Amino acid sequence: MTAYQELMAFQRETEALSQIAGRLGWDQETMMPEGATPQRAEEHGAMANILHARRIDPRVGDWLETAVPADDVARANLRHIKRSLDRASKVPARLAAELAKTTSLAHRTWAQARADEDVPAFLPILQKVVDLRKEEAAAIAGNADPYDALLDDYEPGATGASLAAMFDALRPRLVALRSAILDKPAPQTLSGEFDEAAQLALSEKLALAFGYSVANGRIDKAVHPFSSGSGLDVRITTRTSLTDPFNCFYSTVHEVGHAAYEQGIDQAHLLTPLGRGVSMGVHESQSRIYENQLGRSRAFTSWLYGQMRDAFGDFGIADEGAFYATVNRVSDGFIRTEADEVQYNLHVLLRFDLERALMAGDLAVNDLEAAWNDRFKADFGYAVDKPSNGVLQDVHWSEGLFGYFPTYTLGNVYAGCLHQALRQAVPELDDQLAQGDTSQATGWLRTHLQQFGGLRSPADTIQHATGNAPSEAPLLDYLDAKFGDIYGL
Amino acid sequence: MTAYQELMAFQRETEALSQIAGRLGWDQETMMPEGATPQRAEEHGAMANILHARRIDPRVGDWLETAVPADDVARANLRHIKRSLDRASKVPARLAAELAKTTSLAHRTWAQARADEDVPAFLPILQKVVDLRKEEAAAIAGNADPYDALLDDYEPGATGASLAAMFDALRPRLVALRSAILDKPAPQTLSGEFDEAAQLALSEKLALAFGYSVANGRIDKAVHPFSSGSGLDVRITTRTSLTDPFNCFYSTVHEVGHAAYEQGIDQAHLLTPLGRGVSMGVHESQSRIYENQLGRSRAFTSWLYGQMRDAFGDFGIADEGAFYATVNRVSDGFIRTEADEVQYNLHVLLRFDLERALMAGDLAVNDLEAAWNDRFKADFGYAVDKPSNGVLQDVHWSEGLFGYFPTYTLGNVYAGCLHQALRQAVPELDDQLAQGDTSQATGWLRTHLQQFGGLRSPADTIQHATGNAPSEAPLLDYLDAKFGDIYGL
Repeated sequence: MTAYQELMAFQRETEALSQIAGRLGWDQETMMPEGATPQRAEEHGAMANILHARRIDPRVGDWLETAVPADDVARANLRHIKRSLDRASKVPARLAAELAKTTSLAHRTWAQARADEDVPAFLPILQKVVDLRKEEAAAIAGNADPYDALLDDYEPGATGASLAAMFDALRPRLVALRSAILDKPAPQTLSGEFDEAAQLALSEKLALAFGYSVANGRIDKAVHPFSSGSGLDVRITTRTSLTDPFNCFYSTVHEVGHAAYEQGIDQAHLLTPLGRGVSMGVHESQSRIYENQLGRSRAFTSWLYGQMRDAFGDFGIADEGAFYATVNRVSDGFIRTEADEVQYNLHVLLRFDLERALMAGDLAVNDLEAAWNDRFKADFGYAVDKPSNGVLQDVHWSEGLFGYFPTYTLGNVYAGCLHQALRQAVPELDDQLAQGDTSQATGWLRTHLQQFGGLRSPADTIQHATGNAPSEAPLLDYLDAKFGDIYGL
Repeated sequence: MTAYQELMAFQRETEALSQIAGRLGWDQETMMPEGATPQRAEEHGAMANILHARRIDPRVGDWLETAVPADDVARANLRHIKRSLDRASKVPARLAAELAKTTSLAHRTWAQARADEDVPAFLPILQKVVDLRKEEAAAIAGNADPYDALLDDYEPGATGASLAAMFDALRPRLVALRSAILDKPAPQTLSGEFDEAAQLALSEKLALAFGYSVANGRIDKAVHPFSSGSGLDVRITTRTSLTDPFNCFYSTVHEVGHAAYEQGIDQAHLLTPLGRGVSMGVHESQSRIYENQLGRSRAFTSWLYGQMRDAFGDFGIADEGAFYATVNRVSDGFIRTEADEVQYNLHVLLRFDLERALMAGDLAVNDLEAAWNDRFKADFGYAVDKPSNGVLQDVHWSEGLFGYFPTYTLGNVYAGCLHQALRQAVPELDDQLAQGDTSQATGWLRTHLQQFGGLRSPADTIQHATGNAPSEAPLLDYLDAKFGDIYGL
């Protein structure tokens, strides 16, 4: 065997073990009996140790030195493996262990602080997390911008500065659009209750309509919907709310977007570094285009309206037009995960600017709450009423996930680019969506993006699919047009 | 840290990984989407390689050489780890790989041969499996009896000769009892259909009645019922048959017996070699005493009769006495897994004698079918009608599981010993069982056997619980008394 073949055989086992570790997480959220928690923590720890040891195995470095790539696929595989080795070997074991211990404690502290609406109780441990992540960033990137070193873990090649340029162009137009919309009369909301078994049945129909393969996946209920796994076993979860069936339907379609990406990767890349979605941002572009540009389009919601009438009878919305406005209703709210397409990115931009300032040392942890509240007031026009609606809202920082938030908006930006290209490639798209048929849309995404997995960098993945470098302009144009139409702006 | 502490820390991770590997098997039988099969095979392979490498890790040998046990628990831990290292390091990697490949192929060949009723199609690959297992046995035990080397993997300390002595005492009395029973009029059978949701609900009630903890487990459906996992996460499966609710109920109680053993082990042994049931035979003693001596007793079935009347209304059995006879009905049949308490062991003894002769070279693979059919005719009095009811009936040999069958009967023998001791310790047992209350019975088993896990050898585990060395006499006396009573012998 050549060095490349030996390396890939070793890597294949590592990828298989990584799939097992991921499925352990799925099991924990869906199937695990409550009393198993302490044992499960040890199981997770044992798998993490095995995977870490394999990533920094000295043989990997040796193989990388002598492996000769035969083609672009091999070159990409080597690039991913080298990147993983570099990052893993630069972080001292002592620091990795301290980070794991501290974020575990911080997570519990955050949950209690949020329940108690007690920001000061969370800040000391948050300070520790910030300090440790800075130390980790310095170990990886030396004197370079620590935020970039963290961001690179979720979105290889992206930098805080490049994102800031894009996001700073988004913000004023989103603030203006939001304000214009909220000056108009609000569309109707849903009222009444919606049978949960019927929600789950229609949710499964939606998953299948968006091309999710249950031969290579399954749908279960979980508190927080997620997608899990790569290759031939990609599972999703959903949830129900008795009064809000959209929560179930659009959670499902969102997770189907993630899962379809994984299921759509060329099986030649199975259990290799190319056999997974290339970045968080590109992943989110798939979940978002499925959920929003396709799932919340006028055409698709006209089909969904009929499905809901079949499932629930007359539920108080007079026609497809009113239903489209209800699905896309924009209203005040504090919570990022409940936000509509227009306001969602404002929530993310706030977090991005604050966490970047934290990492740069331009914002002290003790000033974080005030900075959050000021920024929220500036963009949304009203004050945060309590910490659980503000700085204690999200789990991410307690887990040390700095650099993760911007990938949400980057995904929306990418989805805007892909949607523009898709519309040009498939002019008759709306006729199909109005029949509940997404096959040309999802087929185009599979052909132009999903199948390649990790072959190209995230930005190149979008450029290859659309023919253009990523830009925020298509997303802004799409939002202006869509909400201008709905709200008569 | 001392050598013992270092070894135990390493072993603890190995045990955690082993739990993950086991749960992967559970997932495959209950949750895995069909299309995931090829990927799952690689995942299983990767985990098996990791576990094997840890079992023969050179550090384990070093630690074992210098570790000083402080007490009986430490001594037992060292004994288990040494045994695992010895077995694993004696089998060459080449042979282990060939066995894995050959049994995988043999399993598929057997399934097809059974479907086709085609014994000759199975024999060549069975010959290979036999040869490889003999080679493995020789690698482990040198010139000692190869069957003993294999048996020792399932029942440490047992030998073919010691089991044969016990089983040879069982056989004539079981043949005689069977014959006497079948000369009498047969009890009524169940007729009609039994709602499957109601079966599952009552099955869960039975699991709880026998002390199964759903806080540390869960119950799902599977084609073949099984119990999976140790420590804080012990899951069971069951199945339903529309016309045979006993299949569901007694499968569940059987698996609860296995699971209760795992759940009953002292949590001080969690994720150590003592934290698992000590042998297949002792495991089966728990499943069997739950299922048969307790679950099929006159007292307990009187409670079950009432439960079934509540769940299904009048199902055609007039009273508790008739119900007891129906539950314990003895009738002709070819299939081991469907056999009653009297005939079950005759099925096992047949397989034990044949596989021992195969391994000793006293029986050729080509003569196996004829030997099976002759022996069946001798013990059961009628001829095997087709291979799927005879030599192709069970999966075990195709998977190379020689030495496994006798642990089924050994479990019944142990259950007989435990039941005798339990009756002496808890004279009022029947009053409780008649109320559906098994707490004193299961509490006695937990206190006297289950809690100790792997502390003592299998035989010493039974001796410690009962005060006597294991013997077939209590099982035979119990069967004579019980079936003599039911059939008026």
